[in-house]
Amino acid sequence: MFKVKVLNHDVISKILDMKQVINAVEQVYTLKAKGKADLFPMVFHEFERGVADMDIKSGCIKEAGFFGLKLVSWFGENAKKNMSPIIGTSIVFDTETGKPLGLLNAEYITGMRTGAAGAIGAKYLARKDSENLLIVGTGHQSAFQIAATLIVMDNIKKVRIYEPMGPEKAISFVESIGQVLENEFLSKYKEDKQAYNEIAEKFNVIFEPVHDIKAAVGESDIIITATPSRKPMIDKEWVKPGTHFSCVGSDMEGKQEIDENIFAKAKVYVDDIAQAINVGETEIPIKKGIISKEDIIGEIGYLMIGKINGRTSNDDITIYDTTGIALQDLMTAKLALGIAEKKNLGVEVDL
Amino acid sequence: MFKVKVLNHDVISKILDMKQVINAVEQVYTLKAKGKADLFPMVFHEFERGVADMDIKSGCIKEAGFFGLKLVSWFGENAKKNMSPIIGTSIVFDTETGKPLGLLNAEYITGMRTGAAGAIGAKYLARKDSENLLIVGTGHQSAFQIAATLIVMDNIKKVRIYEPMGPEKAISFVESIGQVLENEFLSKYKEDKQAYNEIAEKFNVIFEPVHDIKAAVGESDIIITATPSRKPMIDKEWVKPGTHFSCVGSDMEGKQEIDENIFAKAKVYVDDIAQAINVGETEIPIKKGIISKEDIIGEIGYLMIGKINGRTSNDDITIYDTTGIALQDLMTAKLALGIAEKKNLGVEVDL
Repeated sequence: MFKVKVLNHDVISKILDMKQVINAVEQVYTLKAKGKADLFPMVFHEFERGVADMDIKSGCIKEAGFFGLKLVSWFGENAKKNMSPIIGTSIVFDTETGKPLGLLNAEYITGMRTGAAGAIGAKYLARKDSENLLIVGTGHQSAFQIAATLIVMDNIKKVRIYEPMGPEKAISFVESIGQVLENEFLSKYKEDKQAYNEIAEKFNVIFEPVHDIKAAVGESDIIITATPSRKPMIDKEWVKPGTHFSCVGSDMEGKQEIDENIFAKAKVYVDDIAQAINVGETEIPIKKGIISKEDIIGEIGYLMIGKINGRTSNDDITIYDTTGIALQDLMTAKLALGIAEKKNLGVEVDL
Repeated sequence: MFKVKVLNHDVISKILDMKQVINAVEQVYTLKAKGKADLFPMVFHEFERGVADMDIKSGCIKEAGFFGLKLVSWFGENAKKNMSPIIGTSIVFDTETGKPLGLLNAEYITGMRTGAAGAIGAKYLARKDSENLLIVGTGHQSAFQIAATLIVMDNIKKVRIYEPMGPEKAISFVESIGQVLENEFLSKYKEDKQAYNEIAEKFNVIFEPVHDIKAAVGESDIIITATPSRKPMIDKEWVKPGTHFSCVGSDMEGKQEIDENIFAKAKVYVDDIAQAINVGETEIPIKKGIISKEDIIGEIGYLMIGKINGRTSNDDITIYDTTGIALQDLMTAKLALGIAEKKNLGVEVDL
């Protein structure tokens, strides 16, 4: 039998803070680029098209002593049952013996590591003087994207929010986002005065709902898309030189958030080339022949370790296509297990 | 948060009995043949060749209300650390909502469902009057194969044991197998006098270590191979007409237990065609061109529902190649969770 640590949603959402998760995701991108982390093939199954599906993402980070998996189910009709449609569960195993170490509710981990990923795209690819951030989508992910991006960027002054389903949701999102950032993200730093003050100042920006998406795109330095869209919402004609895109929503064949023609004139970076081509925002432009696989500049980890170039001019349009890789989940799970161990949280079971 | 039931090794090995597991595996084979159970692609990763690997097998049995996965790690050097080299962990999820239902230690489940699989091959393909069973291998699986096969067959009189590493292990295996069958398998029926007596009588056979494998093969009606072998141990010239093989050991590219030429004159059945061709005993004969994919008569579930023929003559040589499919694990996990629920065993955690 083995001792396995169980970390549930309440524990994990209390102990993880965004700065640490950003560090963990940066670390894992560089480990992957150095060949020190392996991604295994993804398993995807549609129970019923548009109704329910699941995927299993798995991988190994030997340096962290972990391998493991995350199973994410999406059951669209859960909302009627007062349940979240997306449910994530992770197990991590020891790379020395293969024994299970932890079972984790992966919902909050997924939120945090996805927020971190979009923000890391902006940190390494957007112009340092970027002042205007546009968030497309008002779902569960949007607050994570905003918190993480405000933390990594130093000059954001305005965050615009666009909701493709209509402006009402954007308006109510803007009304509550200040409180959400304070309660869900800033509050984690209560015991670290310096971090608290620094982040409080970064969160102190103007939030504005978008009514005219064309105008908003033209005024934005960084655009983060986080929707389940299957058709482009942003036209290439609207985009000004120097814009950075972090495309977060596409993680399944057929999903698309921005005009595929933007890829023709952009510098394209991804988290994992194979996954981006199969299920990411990069899928459609490649399938339509607008770019080829060779036009992708590379994985962001290679940029972080200096093996490939990033932005070379203030006029470059850059795209970071992040589909989300198992290694992010594993590294964030390791972080959570480490903190839980120190704070003596979670439940230990015999398996 | 979700209530998740945790069943550890001690609980599972107390509550599962072989007759129930055989029923569960038969049920799942027929559901698969009826298109009511889906097998997802297997993920396999070698950490270091011949030292450590892992695989993730997953699938869905909608009728049972379950989907899920089993991750099996093999870490060869665990023995030095006084740990089992093979460690299995399963999670099962609800097909209505996608939420996790149970976390199970899969070691005993794997032993039981693999024993059941080999025996089901014999039940549906061997001659009913088979008296002589030959077990190749004295590892962890052998007792499971013997228990299950004695339960499903009615006329076995002698069980021969061959160990390719040398006869000493076969001799000591024979000395202890009677006690193992009684303690580990028969004891489960203490409260069901009829089943107890019936199985006690079936277990009352002669056990004999094999010194001359050629002679033993020639005297056997049923041969079950359960080794990690990578080269054939049984020559086609030794095999008498009417023999049935259940090949259990091959579950990875390159593994092989019996002479590939036996396939040329045999009727071949498998648990899953894709998996058998990729990693089963069927891999080598197909790669060498001795048979083609079309020569496989079919999956055993199709035989069970009458869609394909089985043995048509007492002289047929039959082969059942079982690589082990996730659906067996899922169905056995469901069985274990059901019994645990009734008996109020296991631990419930919030996830």
